[in-house]
Amino acid sequence: MEECIFCKIIEGEIPAKKLYEDDKVIAILDINPANEGHTLVITKKHYKNILEVPPEDLLGIMETGIKIAKAQMKGLEAGGFNIGINTNEVAGQVVEHFHMHIIPRFKGDGLEEWERRGRYNEGKQEEIFGKIQSFLK
Amino acid sequence: MEECIFCKIIEGEIPAKKLYEDDKVIAILDINPANEGHTLVITKKHYKNILEVPPEDLLGIMETGIKIAKAQMKGLEAGGFNIGINTNEVAGQVVEHFHMHIIPRFKGDGLEEWERRGRYNEGKQEEIFGKIQSFLK
Repeated sequence: MEECIFCKIIEGEIPAKKLYEDDKVIAILDINPANEGHTLVITKKHYKNILEVPPEDLLGIMETGIKIAKAQMKGLEAGGFNIGINTNEVAGQVVEHFHMHIIPRFKGDGLEEWERRGRYNEGKQEEIFGKIQSFLK
Repeated sequence: MEECIFCKIIEGEIPAKKLYEDDKVIAILDINPANEGHTLVITKKHYKNILEVPPEDLLGIMETGIKIAKAQMKGLEAGGFNIGINTNEVAGQVVEHFHMHIIPRFKGDGLEEWERRGRYNEGKQEEIFGKIQSFLK
C-alpha cells in the first residue's frame, strides 16, 4: 500500500517511537495523543480494519495491547486505560490500516467517554433488538 | 458476587435484552446507549477487568464482539462501529465486571472520540517512551 502511513512506518520509511515489535504487530506512540503515552498496536500486514484481520491474529493483538497497557500503568503510574478500535471513517478511523488504541488514564485527566443518549422507550428497544438479532440467528 | 449487576443479569435475576450467549459470554443491549444498538459483551465469570480475563478467553470475546458488530451494521445499517474496553474507574469503567462495548456508528451521529491533546515536544516524547519501554524489556 504505497500511500499508507502505517505501512511506511512498518517499512521504516517514516520514523516512529517503536515500543514493541513481533512477527505480526508493532506498537508505537501516537504522535497526536489523547493522553501522554497513548499507543497504537498496528498489524504488520495492511488490513483495512478489524473485519479484515484473520481471527487467528486477534489473540496476539489483544495480548500485545494488554502488555502495553500494563507497561503504561507501571511506567506512567496510570490508574487504568482505554482500549479502542474504531472501524471505518464514520467511527473515527482516520488511517485505513488496522490499529488499536491503548490510552493510559489518570485521575482528573478530563477525557470524556462517549456521551450516553438516555434510555430507550420499550417499543424502541424491542425494535432495535429485533433488527440486530435477526442477523445473529 | 452478590452485588454485581452483571452477575445478576447472567443469573437471570435482572432482565436484559440478550442478543447472544455461549459458554463464556453473553451480549446484551446497553440500557443507556451511546447510540441505538450499543451492545455489551460480558464474561459469564466475574472478572473485575480485562487484566483478570484468562488469555485463552480473549479470542472468543473478540470474535463475539465482531459478530455483534456485523449484525449491527446489517440490521441497523450502521456504517461502522467502535469497540471499547474501559479498565478501572479512572477510565470510565462503571461496572467492575469485565465488559466490552460495541457501538454502531451512523453518519452525523455526533459522537466524539477522545479529544487529542496536540503533539509532543521532542524531549517529552523521549521521556514518555522511555518510561513505558522500561517495562517492556
